[in-house]
Amino acid sequence: MKLGYLGPRGSFSYLAALAYSPESQKIQLSNFYDVIEGVEVGKIDQAILPIENSTEGAVTPVMDALMNLEQTQIQQELVLKIEHHLLNRTSENKNIQYILSHPQAIEQCRVFIKKHYPRAITIPCESSSSACAIVKEKGNEYAAIANSNGAEIYGLDILHHSIQDNDSNETRFVIIGREKTSASGKDKTSIVFSFHDDYPGSLFTVLKEFEERKINLTKIESRPAKTALGKYFFYIDFEGHVEDIKIRKTLKNVEQLTSKLKILGSYQV
Amino acid sequence: MKLGYLGPRGSFSYLAALAYSPESQKIQLSNFYDVIEGVEVGKIDQAILPIENSTEGAVTPVMDALMNLEQTQIQQELVLKIEHHLLNRTSENKNIQYILSHPQAIEQCRVFIKKHYPRAITIPCESSSSACAIVKEKGNEYAAIANSNGAEIYGLDILHHSIQDNDSNETRFVIIGREKTSASGKDKTSIVFSFHDDYPGSLFTVLKEFEERKINLTKIESRPAKTALGKYFFYIDFEGHVEDIKIRKTLKNVEQLTSKLKILGSYQV
Repeated sequence: MKLGYLGPRGSFSYLAALAYSPESQKIQLSNFYDVIEGVEVGKIDQAILPIENSTEGAVTPVMDALMNLEQTQIQQELVLKIEHHLLNRTSENKNIQYILSHPQAIEQCRVFIKKHYPRAITIPCESSSSACAIVKEKGNEYAAIANSNGAEIYGLDILHHSIQDNDSNETRFVIIGREKTSASGKDKTSIVFSFHDDYPGSLFTVLKEFEERKINLTKIESRPAKTALGKYFFYIDFEGHVEDIKIRKTLKNVEQLTSKLKILGSYQV
Repeated sequence: MKLGYLGPRGSFSYLAALAYSPESQKIQLSNFYDVIEGVEVGKIDQAILPIENSTEGAVTPVMDALMNLEQTQIQQELVLKIEHHLLNRTSENKNIQYILSHPQAIEQCRVFIKKHYPRAITIPCESSSSACAIVKEKGNEYAAIANSNGAEIYGLDILHHSIQDNDSNETRFVIIGREKTSASGKDKTSIVFSFHDDYPGSLFTVLKEFEERKINLTKIESRPAKTALGKYFFYIDFEGHVEDIKIRKTLKNVEQLTSKLKILGSYQV
């Protein structure tokens, strides 16, 4: 089985891919569009994508890309605990002047940096792995924020363990593929929709459909429609499977209320 | 009047500060926390902060920081059209191998880059201004995505004008200060709230309060509560002023339904 993920090797997506399917062939891709397109056109069987972090919120490029799924759907989800470490060439040197990582990782360790390295300059990189590669090349005054895999792959020392500001830092991943999953009895469904009139209060009419049937919502997110300020797409996760009669009826009504409705998938929780 | 903004000089925040108050003394600060704290403690009179872009969505660090306003409130808003240009040392050289900018600016010009410079490597920087500074220092194969101010300040040439993928690219800024503004008859109010039980369906009960009084919502955004996946704060903008009787009654009810309710400010539209 070929499983696509956003590289480079050692990224949190790679860790999630390992956790989801240790045996699969991991296909490293360089951006989210290629990851999704790979599954859409059948070059790879499945892909694993981060969609939400408990601290940073939605992984917005992925949320926006999911909107365009055609041949594929969400088949499963996976939650990974996120631990950042501070890595450098030698753990004996604590005179760190530059701290490199992906902007979200830097943001997630801001309190630690302020406390321990208040004068260090933070440098945003494409990924925590590319930060490791740079630190490996540069001098001892450089450090990278990355996971333990980063230390292993790039041969770096761990200077400080588990430096994330928030200890309940988790990322939710979804696995997409071409086949629909059937109802297990304990499922969740993800949808995204927008409105004709772009009046944010319209959301109320949709939520009412779920409320009236006592369907439990587990997530609500808004994303800009990218046409003008104040126009949104809404992402909702709720308990139930599209094959359930109650859910089918609800979605039929929601379709009437919205200008676009896309069912991203039903999957076991 | 001292007006704080997120630097460096030449940033879109700087352009917005110029548009809001050409005469004021502009105080350049290096991160959003310092900008807000400056007004909170009275070191500066007002600050201008980007909160939402029509393409990229919420400026999440600012949204999260607004949650902690104590002495200050939103006093006004301002919408700025965003135009990105591709700048380099000489517009005669079109052999661009590296394109530098703030990650959001790179994201907003992805179609242009793919079409005109498919082989260029994109390098994320702290800001579009720091990208200009680097391009000025490096060779002719480097280019920066920045606004026209960037070209002027750093003495760069404009290689391509207005390269943003979406022509309706706008950013909404808010101006915060210590004094409350009184009702003008045509106002908007911004609030943020969370729930005891963290059941996303609770949002329905709040929206119902607005729906029943025919109060028009102009914006809904969710942000993670940073405690666990699936727990959110909700930001809502609606028409009316906190001094209006109808709004006062609504907010009294909303307070009962929520675990935390913060009124970020009422301001003229």
